[in-house]
Amino acid sequence: MIAIISDFGLKDPYVGIMKGVIKKINKNADIIDITHLIPPQNIKFAYFILKYSYKHFPENTVFLTVVDPGVGSNRQAIAIEYNNYYFVGPDNGIFSFIPPNKATIINLTNKQFYYAQNTSNTFQGRDIFAPIAAYIDKGVNLSKLGDKIYKMVLLNDINYYIKNNTIYVPLIYIDHFGNLIFNISKKDVANLKKDFIIKFQNKIISEISLNYSTDKDIIALFNSYNLLEIAKPQGSAKDFFNIDTINNKYLTIEPKNN
Amino acid sequence: MIAIISDFGLKDPYVGIMKGVIKKINKNADIIDITHLIPPQNIKFAYFILKYSYKHFPENTVFLTVVDPGVGSNRQAIAIEYNNYYFVGPDNGIFSFIPPNKATIINLTNKQFYYAQNTSNTFQGRDIFAPIAAYIDKGVNLSKLGDKIYKMVLLNDINYYIKNNTIYVPLIYIDHFGNLIFNISKKDVANLKKDFIIKFQNKIISEISLNYSTDKDIIALFNSYNLLEIAKPQGSAKDFFNIDTINNKYLTIEPKNN
Amino acid sequence: MIAIISDFGLKDPYVGIMKGVIKKINKNADIIDITHLIPPQNIKFAYFILKYSYKHFPENTVFLTVVDPGVGSNRQAIAIEYNNYYFVGPDNGIFSFIPPNKATIINLTNKQFYYAQNTSNTFQGRDIFAPIAAYIDKGVNLSKLGDKIYKMVLLNDINYYIKNNTIYVPLIYIDHFGNLIFNISKKDVANLKKDFIIKFQNKIISEISLNYSTDKDIIALFNSYNLLEIAKPQGSAKDFFNIDTINNKYLTIEPKNN
Repeated sequence: MIAIISDFGLKDPYVGIMKGVIKKINKNADIIDITHLIPPQNIKFAYFILKYSYKHFPENTVFLTVVDPGVGSNRQAIAIEYNNYYFVGPDNGIFSFIPPNKATIINLTNKQFYYAQNTSNTFQGRDIFAPIAAYIDKGVNLSKLGDKIYKMVLLNDINYYIKNNTIYVPLIYIDHFGNLIFNISKKDVANLKKDFIIKFQNKIISEISLNYSTDKDIIALFNSYNLLEIAKPQGSAKDFFNIDTINNKYLTIEPKNN
Repeated sequence: MIAIISDFGLKDPYVGIMKGVIKKINKNADIIDITHLIPPQNIKFAYFILKYSYKHFPENTVFLTVVDPGVGSNRQAIAIEYNNYYFVGPDNGIFSFIPPNKATIINLTNKQFYYAQNTSNTFQGRDIFAPIAAYIDKGVNLSKLGDKIYKMVLLNDINYYIKNNTIYVPLIYIDHFGNLIFNISKKDVANLKKDFIIKFQNKIISEISLNYSTDKDIIALFNSYNLLEIAKPQGSAKDFFNIDTINNKYLTIEPKNN
Repeated sequence: MIAIISDFGLKDPYVGIMKGVIKKINKNADIIDITHLIPPQNIKFAYFILKYSYKHFPENTVFLTVVDPGVGSNRQAIAIEYNNYYFVGPDNGIFSFIPPNKATIINLTNKQFYYAQNTSNTFQGRDIFAPIAAYIDKGVNLSKLGDKIYKMVLLNDINYYIKNNTIYVPLIYIDHFGNLIFNISKKDVANLKKDFIIKFQNKIISEISLNYSTDKDIIALFNSYNLLEIAKPQGSAKDFFNIDTINNKYLTIEPKNN
């Protein structure tokens, strides 16, 4: 089974063409769309969606992930086996949730498995990634696709950190309701003492809600990803806080008497 | 076969995750999207789309319908067998076109068929409805999924009514062209005497057009659902009448000399 | 395998209903979406997307193409076999890239293969085209579907022409990044002498870029379709030139010293 994530949108034929190429190679491929509406070239969003989706798919699913600002440059094309799943895409940080030392990583240099010997500089989703996913799904062993490597690009500003008793948690995703999702889990927070407060852009939130049914203005809760989320019930927290990018946005978790 | 209707949109991974969960349980499931662009929590639109779509699918299709403003509350989760089709979703009126006394309705209390024993309060599409649909499609008998019940929530303002010789017909759907669709069928109207006129928001329409090819400003016709529709040829009737919600919007069919 | 192109959008149930009808006839049909976001009734866009997608699909794929401004009029419904592919849709120019004398063209008059004997005037995608595609995919011979014909409607303003040493190339598609795609291929241009310049709306472009990584304002390159494209790196050429329709927009390729 092949599951696809891209920033190709739904208007142009790019996704359909990738599926056609897959079916040419692997007639019986079962293809599922995760999303094609990643904001153009937003690697972090793709990282987030892939990280929190993949475990809900059957083992051996091949995740074809094409968000590729460096297409045509000399960034590597890679395939990964990890945790009984397969991942194919550009080496640009999308796969940062995978520890390289627990995965098999292949630099996709064997052009025999490309769709075209002369790959295009602008659409390697069609020419490299889709056919590689089709071959892996068909049973081709990763070792045939290129050379084993031991490092890959990792995003470096996606994890929370602690400084002076305060936890700094990066904004990692904004969903279509405008909910703001921060990269710290229920389990991580559970280890805190109880007398902490949450601050985001000068707004103080002093308790965790159980669901969206409340008459409060702005709430914090653990969402279906088990991540800390700031939401505006029946409204958009994104609009409330006037957020237009996730970059450099942190909430803090601080001792109450700070 | 499983056909899905939701208000999850296409940006977030929610629909993909539901499909992953289905495939984990039922590897060979054949999944079709009907729409995921129901306006958030709009139960009437979901009712309309399901009612007028389901007969065009093969018998035994399972309709997974997740428009669920009450998620996390104590509303029931139900599965229905009716007319050789299956329906799975929240008990909130979505299935109002099904007469309860001609259907088998199950309250989905058997947690053995849930995806997770501890279901989330915010994403029961993943945790309850998708896995139940997968099991039904796989052949599990409805009786195993919970207790048989004899009532379900029914919407009460979706049908036309007659008062003082005038028929009041509710607006039930607005399509992406801006056509306004009213819940009365060609057959229902055929029984009327011929000397009736149609009124909507002070606009009088005195005849039924056969198709959109006309130089009239605003027309009424029976559309491909066989329902009465008000349209603006090569334009949007929604914009013309400045409609922003279907709630409490009625057209009237009145004797000509009223 | 059936691949679908339409202007039905993703909000309404029309695409889902066509798939239901296909599955009723042909339970094992493998269905792929190319796009449903063709701008309403834009035959040229559908022509472009189909022309540049179809070769990437496996042989024997049936392309179900429903962009149909003339629905309900007396335009013909046709099916075509060409180059080991099948095409089904209205006879309105969508298939203009197929030379009629190298194809088998059928006028779909045999109502036995329609979904309903009384077809609707507004949704022949459901009533004629989807079921015909399902039957072809199932193996029904084209000769059973109606009468062989030798002509079809061809678009007449989609090809470049040469006049007074200048090549006039029509704008044929605008993608979702705002790139402007013109209907002349790399091969066609390769035959030119080197001392030509490109002009579009008074902007002069004197060289062909290799990819989008440049600090130039407006560039010309050959894209993944191998067609000449005008792009604004990290921006929208559509917005830059303030283009709102592709009609009657031409770039010129002229001798440098013109």
